[in-house]
Amino acid sequence: MSAHSRSKTSLTYADAGVDIDAGDRFADSIGALLRRTHGPRVISNAGGFAGLFRLDFNEKLFARNYRDPVLVACTDGVGTKIKLAAQIGRYETVGIDLVAMSVNDLVVQGAEPLIFLDYIATGKVKHDVLHDIVGGVSVGCQRAGCALIGGETAEMPDVYRPGELDLAGFAVGVVELRRVIDPIRVEPGDVVLGLASSGVHSNGYSLVRTILSSARLKLDKTYREVDPDRSLGEVLLEPTRIYAEPIVKLLRSYRVKKVVSAMAHITGGGLAGNLARSLPDNCDAVIDRRTWPVPPVFEFLQRHGNVDPDEMDRVFNMGVGFVLIVRPTFAEGVAKKLTRAGERVHMIGRITKGKGRVKIVGNRQKAMGKSPKRR
Amino acid sequence: MSAHSRSKTSLTYADAGVDIDAGDRFADSIGALLRRTHGPRVISNAGGFAGLFRLDFNEKLFARNYRDPVLVACTDGVGTKIKLAAQIGRYETVGIDLVAMSVNDLVVQGAEPLIFLDYIATGKVKHDVLHDIVGGVSVGCQRAGCALIGGETAEMPDVYRPGELDLAGFAVGVVELRRVIDPIRVEPGDVVLGLASSGVHSNGYSLVRTILSSARLKLDKTYREVDPDRSLGEVLLEPTRIYAEPIVKLLRSYRVKKVVSAMAHITGGGLAGNLARSLPDNCDAVIDRRTWPVPPVFEFLQRHGNVDPDEMDRVFNMGVGFVLIVRPTFAEGVAKKLTRAGERVHMIGRITKGKGRVKIVGNRQKAMGKSPKRR
Repeated sequence: MSAHSRSKTSLTYADAGVDIDAGDRFADSIGALLRRTHGPRVISNAGGFAGLFRLDFNEKLFARNYRDPVLVACTDGVGTKIKLAAQIGRYETVGIDLVAMSVNDLVVQGAEPLIFLDYIATGKVKHDVLHDIVGGVSVGCQRAGCALIGGETAEMPDVYRPGELDLAGFAVGVVELRRVIDPIRVEPGDVVLGLASSGVHSNGYSLVRTILSSARLKLDKTYREVDPDRSLGEVLLEPTRIYAEPIVKLLRSYRVKKVVSAMAHITGGGLAGNLARSLPDNCDAVIDRRTWPVPPVFEFLQRHGNVDPDEMDRVFNMGVGFVLIVRPTFAEGVAKKLTRAGERVHMIGRITKGKGRVKIVGNRQKAMGKSPKRR
Repeated sequence: MSAHSRSKTSLTYADAGVDIDAGDRFADSIGALLRRTHGPRVISNAGGFAGLFRLDFNEKLFARNYRDPVLVACTDGVGTKIKLAAQIGRYETVGIDLVAMSVNDLVVQGAEPLIFLDYIATGKVKHDVLHDIVGGVSVGCQRAGCALIGGETAEMPDVYRPGELDLAGFAVGVVELRRVIDPIRVEPGDVVLGLASSGVHSNGYSLVRTILSSARLKLDKTYREVDPDRSLGEVLLEPTRIYAEPIVKLLRSYRVKKVVSAMAHITGGGLAGNLARSLPDNCDAVIDRRTWPVPPVFEFLQRHGNVDPDEMDRVFNMGVGFVLIVRPTFAEGVAKKLTRAGERVHMIGRITKGKGRVKIVGNRQKAMGKSPKRR
């Protein structure tokens, strides 16, 4: 029996809620988005079972060769920021977030991002939504300098309700063995540099959403104390800053070995939780809150949710999205280079003898822009 | 205000449904499961932001060096097989499935699997469930000969209901540039070898579950016509066969270039859909259904769901989980080697001049074991 004469009582894959053809059409339509991220090291493999990427590459302009290459890999999602995107109906920015979350983790190890893959799961494939997400992933990959060489779109009725989505990203990079960044390099006297975040990034959105609903805040409203020019929704969807390019460039620019002792990507767990992962057992980091401005959105959320300041520190980046621990003699030079590369850099602390702890001292610097009245 | 004196009306991350400490404890407990998969090429990086794996490795026993390494990467999930696992309350086998889905795709390109990462998303972290899943992932990685060097557990209340879960897997392998398997190698006269699947593998479970409920089949019941020794649930949860080890060994054993022309991992889309991905535009594959036995579980599902035979072919592997297209002079040698490595091998077809199509001819071979009565 051919497909079109199928009897009414027979079950097909489409009856079970899965449309293979729709999935195929989508896979075709994203081809162009992937190709935008492809340099000459990507080996074309359309329709193949996996993506292919040449590690060594001897062509003149793009020459890359590794003596003792270490592959660096990590995976992450965007948490419930995806729910906020769905509420607002804008999906491109979370695609950028997805790339940021993984590649920022890669560069912490000193790696240069090479390849990225995305996993998108949904109850029902909506082409425009998925196209926007992959469009964002493509933009993120271009910003990070890595190639989007594959991905999977899983249509799973019953696991996800029709409007529900989840995203997972996966990044692979490479670093020379002798240049792997390792907390063991950190020494007392090292300077802690903080790079400004672009906003809430991709962590803490379960709390954000709880505050939104309990305080009846409106996503389409412009709260002057947060940002006089953008709605709250736009501020909260601002994509996570991708630090890959400036950091990779920085690491390449120093032939000297010990300029950057360690780094940290500030995600769930906040500054203290993440910086601690980059400290050896015999050092503390003493961070001074007065050294950088906390973006107004954090004060706004704290006030409306009546959130404990410690909890804010533990959940959010509070304005610092990425941290470098650098040798004191190079601190100013590194800060200058990063500033020239477009980063806002603050000297936020020092490394002391200690026990692997992060101590945050001082009161917060007043938020920039119009400071909201305290109730 | 410190955490323990938090006022009642203040919102914390835990109030929003996320328990950071529980997540941390789980991350610790899976450390041992990860280490089981680690060879000497894994660089220890506990607590770090990403996993580290040495590509070249010059130590005697484990020496590996690549002249022009190509990274091969892919991602996949297990589809709604996870729902079946949840229904039955057994989670280890889907962890194995997760590894199988990605590494089988890797080896299609001729790659040796190196590293794996998992992404687990859930509404509420349940340690025993996640431990079982990661335990399965660890077993799968050991079978595939790759290192589990990272993963992410995302607790996302609101996206997933408390009992709901989703899994995504990411695998990276490496292959010498001149040994990348490419459909362009396929020639008329090549022989198509099919390797037996272990069952339904990880595709078609939305249809399986629809059939289960419409025909009121019981997962804890033993249907003699399917398997006299195992319940239907056990048969359906049988993990996807991992073909990595025998295929990698096979490819290494031939110094001659053109022994294996192409390969295919049979997933969603069935034998025809997946084999077509491995054909050049000027060749067809003619597959003869009479050459391999269809496992009884497929006939059982077809009968109870009254599913069109074409639909069965399009959704399920029907007993063939992996396909090799080999040069005719080597076909018998390859079949012998794979048989010796523990695979059940069938010569299922031939390559002819054509247009990149898969033609399936002949009637199905009767199911092995007790054949069910036709209604």
